[in-house]
Amino acid sequence: MKTLQSPENLQSDKLHEECGVFGIFSSSKTDVAKSVFYGLFALQHRGQEGCGICVNDKGIFSSYKDLGLLNEVFNQQTLENLGEGTAAVGHVRYGTTGATNRLNCQPLEVHHIKGSLALCHNGNLTNTTDLRTRLELEGSVFHTSSDSEVIANAIIKQRLSCDCIEDAVQKAMKQIKGAYSLAIMTQDKMLAVRDPLGMRPLCIGKTGDGSYVVSSESCALTAIKAQFVRDVEPGEIVVFSRGETFDQIKIDSIQTLKNIPPQAVPKKALCVFEYIYFARADSVIDGVSVQQARQKAGMFLADEHPVDADVVIGVPDSGLDAALGYAMQSKIPYGLGFVKNKYIGRTFIAPQQKERTDKVRIKLNAVENTVKDKRVIMVDDSIVRGTTSALIVKLIKEAGAKEVHVRISAPPFLYPCYYGTDVDSQENLIACHNSIEEIKEIIGADSLGYLSIENALKIANNFGKNTFCAACFNGTYPIL
Amino acid sequence: MKTLQSPENLQSDKLHEECGVFGIFSSSKTDVAKSVFYGLFALQHRGQEGCGICVNDKGIFSSYKDLGLLNEVFNQQTLENLGEGTAAVGHVRYGTTGATNRLNCQPLEVHHIKGSLALCHNGNLTNTTDLRTRLELEGSVFHTSSDSEVIANAIIKQRLSCDCIEDAVQKAMKQIKGAYSLAIMTQDKMLAVRDPLGMRPLCIGKTGDGSYVVSSESCALTAIKAQFVRDVEPGEIVVFSRGETFDQIKIDSIQTLKNIPPQAVPKKALCVFEYIYFARADSVIDGVSVQQARQKAGMFLADEHPVDADVVIGVPDSGLDAALGYAMQSKIPYGLGFVKNKYIGRTFIAPQQKERTDKVRIKLNAVENTVKDKRVIMVDDSIVRGTTSALIVKLIKEAGAKEVHVRISAPPFLYPCYYGTDVDSQENLIACHNSIEEIKEIIGADSLGYLSIENALKIANNFGKNTFCAACFNGTYPIL
Amino acid sequence: MKTLQSPENLQSDKLHEECGVFGIFSSSKTDVAKSVFYGLFALQHRGQEGCGICVNDKGIFSSYKDLGLLNEVFNQQTLENLGEGTAAVGHVRYGTTGATNRLNCQPLEVHHIKGSLALCHNGNLTNTTDLRTRLELEGSVFHTSSDSEVIANAIIKQRLSCDCIEDAVQKAMKQIKGAYSLAIMTQDKMLAVRDPLGMRPLCIGKTGDGSYVVSSESCALTAIKAQFVRDVEPGEIVVFSRGETFDQIKIDSIQTLKNIPPQAVPKKALCVFEYIYFARADSVIDGVSVQQARQKAGMFLADEHPVDADVVIGVPDSGLDAALGYAMQSKIPYGLGFVKNKYIGRTFIAPQQKERTDKVRIKLNAVENTVKDKRVIMVDDSIVRGTTSALIVKLIKEAGAKEVHVRISAPPFLYPCYYGTDVDSQENLIACHNSIEEIKEIIGADSLGYLSIENALKIANNFGKNTFCAACFNGTYPIL
Amino acid sequence: MKTLQSPENLQSDKLHEECGVFGIFSSSKTDVAKSVFYGLFALQHRGQEGCGICVNDKGIFSSYKDLGLLNEVFNQQTLENLGEGTAAVGHVRYGTTGATNRLNCQPLEVHHIKGSLALCHNGNLTNTTDLRTRLELEGSVFHTSSDSEVIANAIIKQRLSCDCIEDAVQKAMKQIKGAYSLAIMTQDKMLAVRDPLGMRPLCIGKTGDGSYVVSSESCALTAIKAQFVRDVEPGEIVVFSRGETFDQIKIDSIQTLKNIPPQAVPKKALCVFEYIYFARADSVIDGVSVQQARQKAGMFLADEHPVDADVVIGVPDSGLDAALGYAMQSKIPYGLGFVKNKYIGRTFIAPQQKERTDKVRIKLNAVENTVKDKRVIMVDDSIVRGTTSALIVKLIKEAGAKEVHVRISAPPFLYPCYYGTDVDSQENLIACHNSIEEIKEIIGADSLGYLSIENALKIANNFGKNTFCAACFNGTYPIL
Repeated sequence: MKTLQSPENLQSDKLHEECGVFGIFSSSKTDVAKSVFYGLFALQHRGQEGCGICVNDKGIFSSYKDLGLLNEVFNQQTLENLGEGTAAVGHVRYGTTGATNRLNCQPLEVHHIKGSLALCHNGNLTNTTDLRTRLELEGSVFHTSSDSEVIANAIIKQRLSCDCIEDAVQKAMKQIKGAYSLAIMTQDKMLAVRDPLGMRPLCIGKTGDGSYVVSSESCALTAIKAQFVRDVEPGEIVVFSRGETFDQIKIDSIQTLKNIPPQAVPKKALCVFEYIYFARADSVIDGVSVQQARQKAGMFLADEHPVDADVVIGVPDSGLDAALGYAMQSKIPYGLGFVKNKYIGRTFIAPQQKERTDKVRIKLNAVENTVKDKRVIMVDDSIVRGTTSALIVKLIKEAGAKEVHVRISAPPFLYPCYYGTDVDSQENLIACHNSIEEIKEIIGADSLGYLSIENALKIANNFGKNTFCAACFNGTYPIL
Repeated sequence: MKTLQSPENLQSDKLHEECGVFGIFSSSKTDVAKSVFYGLFALQHRGQEGCGICVNDKGIFSSYKDLGLLNEVFNQQTLENLGEGTAAVGHVRYGTTGATNRLNCQPLEVHHIKGSLALCHNGNLTNTTDLRTRLELEGSVFHTSSDSEVIANAIIKQRLSCDCIEDAVQKAMKQIKGAYSLAIMTQDKMLAVRDPLGMRPLCIGKTGDGSYVVSSESCALTAIKAQFVRDVEPGEIVVFSRGETFDQIKIDSIQTLKNIPPQAVPKKALCVFEYIYFARADSVIDGVSVQQARQKAGMFLADEHPVDADVVIGVPDSGLDAALGYAMQSKIPYGLGFVKNKYIGRTFIAPQQKERTDKVRIKLNAVENTVKDKRVIMVDDSIVRGTTSALIVKLIKEAGAKEVHVRISAPPFLYPCYYGTDVDSQENLIACHNSIEEIKEIIGADSLGYLSIENALKIANNFGKNTFCAACFNGTYPIL
Repeated sequence: MKTLQSPENLQSDKLHEECGVFGIFSSSKTDVAKSVFYGLFALQHRGQEGCGICVNDKGIFSSYKDLGLLNEVFNQQTLENLGEGTAAVGHVRYGTTGATNRLNCQPLEVHHIKGSLALCHNGNLTNTTDLRTRLELEGSVFHTSSDSEVIANAIIKQRLSCDCIEDAVQKAMKQIKGAYSLAIMTQDKMLAVRDPLGMRPLCIGKTGDGSYVVSSESCALTAIKAQFVRDVEPGEIVVFSRGETFDQIKIDSIQTLKNIPPQAVPKKALCVFEYIYFARADSVIDGVSVQQARQKAGMFLADEHPVDADVVIGVPDSGLDAALGYAMQSKIPYGLGFVKNKYIGRTFIAPQQKERTDKVRIKLNAVENTVKDKRVIMVDDSIVRGTTSALIVKLIKEAGAKEVHVRISAPPFLYPCYYGTDVDSQENLIACHNSIEEIKEIIGADSLGYLSIENALKIANNFGKNTFCAACFNGTYPIL
Repeated sequence: MKTLQSPENLQSDKLHEECGVFGIFSSSKTDVAKSVFYGLFALQHRGQEGCGICVNDKGIFSSYKDLGLLNEVFNQQTLENLGEGTAAVGHVRYGTTGATNRLNCQPLEVHHIKGSLALCHNGNLTNTTDLRTRLELEGSVFHTSSDSEVIANAIIKQRLSCDCIEDAVQKAMKQIKGAYSLAIMTQDKMLAVRDPLGMRPLCIGKTGDGSYVVSSESCALTAIKAQFVRDVEPGEIVVFSRGETFDQIKIDSIQTLKNIPPQAVPKKALCVFEYIYFARADSVIDGVSVQQARQKAGMFLADEHPVDADVVIGVPDSGLDAALGYAMQSKIPYGLGFVKNKYIGRTFIAPQQKERTDKVRIKLNAVENTVKDKRVIMVDDSIVRGTTSALIVKLIKEAGAKEVHVRISAPPFLYPCYYGTDVDSQENLIACHNSIEEIKEIIGADSLGYLSIENALKIANNFGKNTFCAACFNGTYPIL
């Protein structure tokens, strides 16, 4: 019998991603800080460590950022202090390192000889050290340890010899490698930028009054009554600027991959975990509904790993859609198997080993009415260390389930991610050290099935346009 | 066309109830404060205004209570300050009046000539004023305006001439009218008391080490690995005391209705809203699973108000089970129609009228994948003012639904509640001033159906043992 | 060579007293909460653990109280929440026990059959246990462990059979023993009460608009532009009530010692430490200026313990006046010998043993300009454990003083206080275990002189009217 | 009769200065954060808006800084998080602009190709805009609006082509104009730098274990038991580095004015207000005791503006020493005329116009015992708007003074300061619009005398070595 390592906290037994970005380029001077606040609020699931907003009032920037959730960092007063403006960008951050530092919060607001710039970044560079050293050799000074400041300095360095910000960004994009979706605000423009592999999502929306917004996910558009316009393309720079009159907004697109020979254009490598876990179910990314992709994962699972059972339940929140997909495909009834305690916040007093309870038990409870005396199929989106899964299976068995068949709507994690997903270190990844049969035993399930990599790459293929990065499953890292 | 009143905040457009209680009578001196903390944490949905815990260390009481959620009031330090103990009781409070006052938080700890007493109360008395005046005439002094202090003083007044606390409670119960489920701790006992009508739930559990717990709902038992023993009966006093050795716990039951002629025994009048809305889906109250009752409500609704449609969705959280019931009964597919933002806390910055967004839009989003181009049945548990319902219907239509058929898993509210449920004033209740057809129009639905009172009273009948208070629907108040 | 015990914090090496009271009975409905707030603010030196205010708006009481300084407990919002009123009372509290409890904060607001009552108490009863037991036997219930609740219950018990509150207070005064200065507010009156020994100060003032105030010290009158009227006499109850019109305030005085045979009237026993240390230098108590009393103490010291020296310095804050007195009497120049860091607050991070610094060094610094190459006379008000004194002497020597002659403006502490002064336990009192010569050596002084008891009792004699409690010096406790 | 403008808060009716710096270069790896914390604590009077500490652990920097007092920003945890180190620098900041911004807090920690640098700055540049533009033209990017970041970037720009930090600093000093005392920490050195005019103080100390400290004022040395070594000279760079062994600290001095022809060496222009108001009385600056300088100012005043009176009192805190000087010179007795409320913190609830009280009355009270029926000489250090002075004079008269003769230990303010002293705008300066006779009337004094400029420049002349900037009095700005 294998033993389990205990994660430090419940959250740690999950994947994490870094950041969400949101920006607005308004057709008039108005309460843009509030719009960004509510937009970011719909992106809070992408980062809970820190957040910030920078407002542009006709060239004058005002920023406020700090560690904490939006509701903790901002109140009526701090929002009002930002004033009205004509554009604004904001950021929610998930910090990958233990050293959480207020200075690393974004937007990163910097000033140079050609003006001011506020930058929000979702993703992770892979050549940070090299590029930073090169910039330092040319005299750059750094205030933080973040790769986002490296991007900002690379852009500004180019800006000195360029006529416009978009040219500078285009040149800088040749230097920076890795995953990046950016919202960049200058004194008179806003840019939406997505890396050539399109690893992180980014989309554009439009409000009723003709203002434009840029957002990591489409779910944030609805929050401020904006209509979805389209996704930003891999390698694209979308430039929002003023037309002849202030309220006339021009949109220009620079396709940086346009002049590359077709055979050299990199294959799109969107992170498949955006569909499986990170994004909100009500978002549509690169033409595919996240909910639909999850349901499709569940359907594939039903075909790959069928089992005779009485009810299909999902582990909230992201397992619910896959469970419904499994139920539809298998014709086994769908059930509401868990109640999740919604009062668990960041400051929750975690139980100690010696106490009567454990972290999972406080967060989740199985519903006896759904599982008692039943053969249960339980769908979840991942098994990281295995600890949490074992406790959840135990909860269902205690509630009277006769059998618990675990189905995972993703393949096993086997390789590290260098693009911003905070996968646990390999030594902690249960799938790196155990066969599926062993994992099944460790978590106490009656059977266990993972989604195949092949099918994982099909859950959101959008007529062949969506190709994915699946490096964490197969070790094949996308190359630019 | 009717117009709508705007509720001050999203929460206010819902029913509220007062309080949850939790107690433990331990077989040894141990970390009882933590057990009560985690127990209360599972009852947090019953009250978010304030909370408190009182620990009994062999007769010495230590209390801590304050306004706020458990996670706000208690931290590692404040919990440790309470020390270890042999018993403890705790309380989560929802305050009905605007005047939120720290002094009204419970447990109410008082000291008198025969010892100390800590009291936790869920419910509402109907003869508070009369009884308080009577007690004041006899010399009682009051520190708060709460009816719970009236109960405490009534008990202590009797205690002076009684040999034991249970006799005093029994005598006091003849004086107090209304709804009350109590957890009472004295220096050497713990009592669980439920009013003769059984209006609020209360149950008993047992932990692995032979300790006993009392809880408003069974969902809190699982949180600390306690097994459900049984519900406290209407009019019953359950007394926990020490046996020959300290760890031997005796349980005695006093059935206060035993000596009443059968025809005079009041009919049980459990609040039907405990099933429909207040309680957590994973609780079992008086023998019936809350989830099952909700699903049954959905099934009845399907029979009472059938409609041809493509998908059934529920409004989270309490509408989900009824929606699944409706789907099962009607054979129309169940869908996950909404994503709820889980970061909305007590301090959320509500949008102003003039802003791009509204409260509902920030809290909920419709999932286009589920509803687009579909005829949708949307199941919710109540319509209070109508404002929220109208905004939700709008969200679904914006997401592309062709039709929205609203089904409410409860009858319309028409009468005030005097037993602790914070129904809005009649002038705000939409059903008091509008026909169902008018409400349908106001909320913008294509059809609207409420559960009938007749069926509402059947959702949890438990072989005829469960009879309900349905005063808020039919104006017939239960009489003792 | 003797060694020293280290106090846990700098404050602990000082005497402490319990509480200050302040009340206003206004000629009109106005912002009485603010008046009490500013009055209490001038009394903050009497208690820093907690505070509270109770406002009376024509019979309706609103209270707010909590642990912390006035500036921490009250802000614009919490003050405004109290609303306007026609009277108000407030309290600052110093807690003697480690178990600081929010419930023990005052005003104590209670309600009984004949109305409501808010009570503020400065002092300490000596028969708390007996009286509480007697009250409990008669049915009283207690919510706190404070002697102030015992006073309240004793008064209310009498009130049931009395026509008016002042009769009830008078009867209760026969039962309670010890030190008490009270501000009591009922729905239509305010009372100022001082115990028969007059152990704690209490005075009356009048504002320009004809409102009356009661305050522990006269320094609080100036803060709200009130004129000093007179001190409350030992054993006196001053009653403020409405006359024919609301703004006409009647003042009645009940001299409870009036009917006692002259030879039985207890001798006044004001705590001499009110003059030496507790009260603010700008207060006038029982006809004598606190500053003048301190200067007189310094003058007596100069006569009792003369020494040839170059400069006289005082330890801030209370040693400054005595030092000036010593300088005037001895004709030796007065100097400003210390700078005190005014940013030390309640949350100061005290240095650990191993660090480069110590608590005294952070709080105080000697001014080289004043002491270098000089023979210094340093006047302080007390030596409790000796630790602090030794460090201060060291500071002066390090700054270059040739000699340091310590003069203490009070006699040595030798006996415990039962009236509310928090003298350290005898085992820690340096004077209980060491001769003056030994203390001199321990603190590193070149000479040491204490004020004699005889002269201490003369520092504020006010033509023979002021007699003192000097129990902590001579062990002779005043008897009623 | 003239009317008065009301300052927004009591503090605003005073001069303010920007910042204090403190650094330690330790002979071993130890708790340097704590040493800097306690050092800064003694400098808190120089800035209360924000503070920060940067610790160097053998090349790795850790910073923590925020808005607030030291006691608010740092607690046991945040100090411990900084870890042990071999050097550290810290800063207390007074912000001159309303836009208080966390980013402007110091130390400013930056990283460049040749290493890391943490900079703390006291003073104000006069060529910020020019220099910043020049740096931006060369590619510099700015994160804040502070002149301190301009200094840092100027130094780093030079560093790229210099062999060592001290050469870079020396070159940068040729570019920067204005007032600056700097503590600079690199990975292996610490530098203390003072501008060529020596406008702000800076001194060096040494601890018992051979560590070196740099501090804005000598009063901070005593706090951590360091001995004063010497002041840093105008135009000097003192470099602390490691010798052959780690604990052997080398000190090098670069006199940047050395090679300038004697006649071109600028005349020292120390801000005279450091003696009159800013510095702590126990500091010794450039060889002169601050207390002694204040007493000398008082003595000059006694000669310049004699008056027949009974007592001399000082307005706390900085007026006390000048008052004692006046008393000594005039032979008129010194008295303790005021009690200052020490509980006024940053969050004090200031009274509104309509209330019974005013800000001065809450902060200060006159002692009747000292002033009643007396002719009083009141010594203060400045009159800014006049409002406060008028209220203080009123307090003394209310306390019974027969006459109040105001003496100011500085000349009248007439001109703006460009070197970091936050003198109010000229339109608010009472002396810009009124004759001395008019001011006397406005503040209600019986006579008024200011110190002459001539004598002000003599209060600390130190055998002719100290020459001063007196631009705020005479409009003659020092020229480099």
